[in-house]
Amino acid sequence: MAAEGNLVVHTKKAFGWAARDPTGVLSPFNFSRRETGEKDVAFKILYCGICHSDLHMAKNEWDNSIYPLVPGHELVGVVTEVGSKVEKFKVGDKVGVGYMVDSCRSCQNCNDDLENYCPQYTATSSAEYRDGTVTYGGYSDSMVADEHFVITIPDSLSLDVAAPLLCAGITVYSPLRYFGLDKPGMNIGVVGLGGLGHLAVKFAKAFGANVTVISTSPNKEKEAIEYLGAESFLLSRNVNQMKAAIGTLDGIIDTVSAEHPLLPLIGLLKSHGKLVIVGAVVKPLELPAFPLLAGRKIIGGSMIGGIKETQEMIDFAAKHDVKPDIEIVPIDYVNTAMERLLKADVKYRFVIDIGNTLKPSS
Amino acid sequence: MAAEGNLVVHTKKAFGWAARDPTGVLSPFNFSRRETGEKDVAFKILYCGICHSDLHMAKNEWDNSIYPLVPGHELVGVVTEVGSKVEKFKVGDKVGVGYMVDSCRSCQNCNDDLENYCPQYTATSSAEYRDGTVTYGGYSDSMVADEHFVITIPDSLSLDVAAPLLCAGITVYSPLRYFGLDKPGMNIGVVGLGGLGHLAVKFAKAFGANVTVISTSPNKEKEAIEYLGAESFLLSRNVNQMKAAIGTLDGIIDTVSAEHPLLPLIGLLKSHGKLVIVGAVVKPLELPAFPLLAGRKIIGGSMIGGIKETQEMIDFAAKHDVKPDIEIVPIDYVNTAMERLLKADVKYRFVIDIGNTLKPSS
Repeated sequence: MAAEGNLVVHTKKAFGWAARDPTGVLSPFNFSRRETGEKDVAFKILYCGICHSDLHMAKNEWDNSIYPLVPGHELVGVVTEVGSKVEKFKVGDKVGVGYMVDSCRSCQNCNDDLENYCPQYTATSSAEYRDGTVTYGGYSDSMVADEHFVITIPDSLSLDVAAPLLCAGITVYSPLRYFGLDKPGMNIGVVGLGGLGHLAVKFAKAFGANVTVISTSPNKEKEAIEYLGAESFLLSRNVNQMKAAIGTLDGIIDTVSAEHPLLPLIGLLKSHGKLVIVGAVVKPLELPAFPLLAGRKIIGGSMIGGIKETQEMIDFAAKHDVKPDIEIVPIDYVNTAMERLLKADVKYRFVIDIGNTLKPSS
Repeated sequence: MAAEGNLVVHTKKAFGWAARDPTGVLSPFNFSRRETGEKDVAFKILYCGICHSDLHMAKNEWDNSIYPLVPGHELVGVVTEVGSKVEKFKVGDKVGVGYMVDSCRSCQNCNDDLENYCPQYTATSSAEYRDGTVTYGGYSDSMVADEHFVITIPDSLSLDVAAPLLCAGITVYSPLRYFGLDKPGMNIGVVGLGGLGHLAVKFAKAFGANVTVISTSPNKEKEAIEYLGAESFLLSRNVNQMKAAIGTLDGIIDTVSAEHPLLPLIGLLKSHGKLVIVGAVVKPLELPAFPLLAGRKIIGGSMIGGIKETQEMIDFAAKHDVKPDIEIVPIDYVNTAMERLLKADVKYRFVIDIGNTLKPSS
């Protein structure tokens, strides 16, 4: 927390939309950002993805929100100013920032390019910088960040589709890589077909996997197979379908953040298979130990990815044409978009057109 | 199950002790084993360890016991006869058999020397051979097994201490290897200090680890540190001790088969740490997902080990002087031993002196 008497005041005017309290309703908000430091990159924000965690944070559902709260950690735009010691960027570059804007830079994880697991990383929204000031996210007109945490967006990727890759994309790409689920010919399951899930399908397919989508809703079958090109679909409450698929998958990326049974998913794994949870499930899940033992299976977790890997992911996405499906919305639609997101009524990610629709209040 | 009308009758007389019903009380039992086939090794049993699962099986606690039930899957002795096509063994060799006596020999796991994960493996006790006859374990005077499932006991290892290595030993050795927890200088936790746990401490130390024993009982501290040479001890219900050790362990071997909370154990792991469950916990455990995500940690299971690795383990044990601490008991003490085992009143493994105390009934 910021020590009193050590108050840092920023002077660079910024404008965005913020939640003021746990109703989570967003409205226009004037604030300030720091001046561009010698290692900083300043950029005009053009697009920002809406992540499900924006919703949790806006409503203080994780009990750590700081109001006023400007959400958004999938922000992309064009560089407007760089500090004197910035090496990687110049004015006019297309760039983005994801979930983090800082970390300790000295722990083992930071040294290993795993800033996302640094115990002291600073989130892009509703956290505190080292100087005690609050981080404001990408539902706003401008950003200033240390160049280490800024990602280059490849020219071949348009900015609107690049935005969701910075959180949703890396969240599914990183575990596919780390857990060795990126080999051609593997059978990979994806649980849940939302913002994360549809990107998991696309990345797994780009790695050459046979993809099985597992969902509670029968109307996802057509989407999964015909539209996203998954090889098969399992309705998780269809006992016969699930039974027939026992022991067929090398790995599963589980994107569901609601409480759900793990036993049927563990059953779908081959021996030595890996179930990776990437949804931030709040309530403890039931873990039957014996099925893990009997097949030497593992359950792992994974959370976003490091900066180096995020750059690797976005370069991979550009090269292999992995693009999220997005619905572009104006900023004044954001409260409606959040309501729809809560009902999973979006295919598959809302992206706010900041550049064309966010106008400074008088 | 054995098809009726296809009944195989074995003619080689054998004698042991068996449970007749779910009271689990053992008493003398005459039965028969098959004649030594061309790939078979027959041996006189000299020692047999008492594993906690013998207790579960004798009492039908896993609901799959076949009575009369001769327990025992940590059996060692001396070869008395070999079949015409046996290549690895000769009369007089010191040998042992562990948890398995057969597997399909053709699935991926069998091809990968992981017969323990073959869906059709045949357990050494209370299972059915392919011919429909029942397997009888090592609380008996003799054994016949395919040479593939027979382990050579190195000369430098005495037979009594070798016995528990065949199940308890491989159960902890295999996950230390597979999960990469066998590197010198690693910090390894061992939960529970019984038959499995004390061997986990010894193997981890032989790999060069710094070992932390985690237990619910304060009187294990002295044993762990002074006697077994563990570097540290954590009383799991001492909140301050547990808190001070957060994020310190590279991996944990969890040998506890009673229900227990996983959250504090996950907390002890460093980022990317591994908690491996080897205790056959019956009730589902509570799995908090977020701590897994936040540190990219995993929970895995592991069950005994393949035949090749069992041989490797026992050779390693002989070379590095890893020996279980045993209490040798006569066969007519077996019911008392089982009662004491239930109360964890043994340091750390009972071994039945079959050779000197099992006498055929008249």
